[in-house]
Amino acid sequence: MRWTGEADTSGGVRERGFEVEVDGRVVPGILWLPRTVLRPPLEGRVDPRPLVLLGHGATRHKRIDYLLALAHGLAGDQGFAVAAIDGPGHGDRRAPGHDDEAALFGAFLAEWSRDGSTDDMVADWRATLDALGELDEVGDGPVGYWGLSMGTIYGIPLVAAEPRIQVAVFGLMGLVGPTRARMAADAASITCPVLFVQQWDDSLIPRTDAFGLFDAIASVDKRLHAHPGDHAAVPVEEVAFSAEFLARHLAPHAGEDGGGI
Amino acid sequence: MRWTGEADTSGGVRERGFEVEVDGRVVPGILWLPRTVLRPPLEGRVDPRPLVLLGHGATRHKRIDYLLALAHGLAGDQGFAVAAIDGPGHGDRRAPGHDDEAALFGAFLAEWSRDGSTDDMVADWRATLDALGELDEVGDGPVGYWGLSMGTIYGIPLVAAEPRIQVAVFGLMGLVGPTRARMAADAASITCPVLFVQQWDDSLIPRTDAFGLFDAIASVDKRLHAHPGDHAAVPVEEVAFSAEFLARHLAPHAGEDGGGI
Repeated sequence: MRWTGEADTSGGVRERGFEVEVDGRVVPGILWLPRTVLRPPLEGRVDPRPLVLLGHGATRHKRIDYLLALAHGLAGDQGFAVAAIDGPGHGDRRAPGHDDEAALFGAFLAEWSRDGSTDDMVADWRATLDALGELDEVGDGPVGYWGLSMGTIYGIPLVAAEPRIQVAVFGLMGLVGPTRARMAADAASITCPVLFVQQWDDSLIPRTDAFGLFDAIASVDKRLHAHPGDHAAVPVEEVAFSAEFLARHLAPHAGEDGGGI
Repeated sequence: MRWTGEADTSGGVRERGFEVEVDGRVVPGILWLPRTVLRPPLEGRVDPRPLVLLGHGATRHKRIDYLLALAHGLAGDQGFAVAAIDGPGHGDRRAPGHDDEAALFGAFLAEWSRDGSTDDMVADWRATLDALGELDEVGDGPVGYWGLSMGTIYGIPLVAAEPRIQVAVFGLMGLVGPTRARMAADAASITCPVLFVQQWDDSLIPRTDAFGLFDAIASVDKRLHAHPGDHAAVPVEEVAFSAEFLARHLAPHAGEDGGGI
């Protein structure tokens, strides 16, 4: 792992770009931390810092507005570490000529259909998690995952493969597309607490296919929150709830009273 | 309206029974208030106190555990007024011999099938609202409604008829039963913010019928929250969210910043 620039604390949190190399691929990412990362030991102990991984949607990138808002809330308000990486062909991994949303979406559909696409992105995330865990400012605290739409396509297999992830937010996806069988199989091995976000009038993901994916998740502790509107119309209320949901499960000592309500 | 006993503040809030007479029916209710109801005017004004009406489920009563928990949270933590009344044939309106849950449920099915059952319960609630509004401790502040299952059967027509109600929590119900057409028609005239609570494995209310009722509600600002489990297994998390949802919309000055997030 190498830093790709200096830390920027102008936004109220500490933000720094990084790159991780995985099987010859260069994976660009961002790490957000509270502005003040050095904490004096209190009564001889420091709780490990929770880490939240953010997966963006198709045609978006690691610093898209809703991820940035989540990162600022989780790092600034909760004191968590937060990281995002660009998906394959997205952000700083974009191929030349894929400059508009239609071209990006077409390229994503091709990538999604490629054998190995899911395994590669899972490997990218796991290498990122390994690298971040070695940083003094992050360490081996509890980990959460947040990713909707394409962030769920790759997030379901990641959470299924990664025992360090203890809570997840998924949604805007269903048992559709080239990896629907892989998603169903991996969902069946997920048992951590899950929030599943659905848009009730989603023109990309049929309602029953979204229900199919929600049903496939094996977690006993899961909930589905649906709001009117199309695919991208997730309200601020739900983004705020998702951050509270992650914080409730990841905050230091959260486990001591049962982890939640 | 007449009080049926002295106020009891032993539970941390002020609780007092009352009766309202409506068309010859005696409607028994409970009013909960913060323990200290007298508030000195601050800078020359006192915000009107929000009021939340709680509708219990079939075979339950106005002081069932989950209503009591809501009442304590909304009155004790939020400073709201909270009221519940017994449904027809329930609680202190129970007929002799209807002593077990099966007999109560049978009696409810007969009552639900009676022409005028919905209109009578709507009248009971509206007379209660009139009477409470005349109390100095309540006044004409914003009103919310919370009622699941039978509390939705009667709550949908109440909220449709009552312009004083500005926010509502419904759920555990669908377009089923003798009044399904009335519920559908009344839902179509509800436009206030709504939280709809659903149990994903509800053996009483088929999923698609619950979706039908959620879809029938005309509100643009609505959300459906579903949890695994049968009819009565609504988790504490969702009850807590419903209280926060009501508080967000009813708290003094809530409207000044848009009333929401």
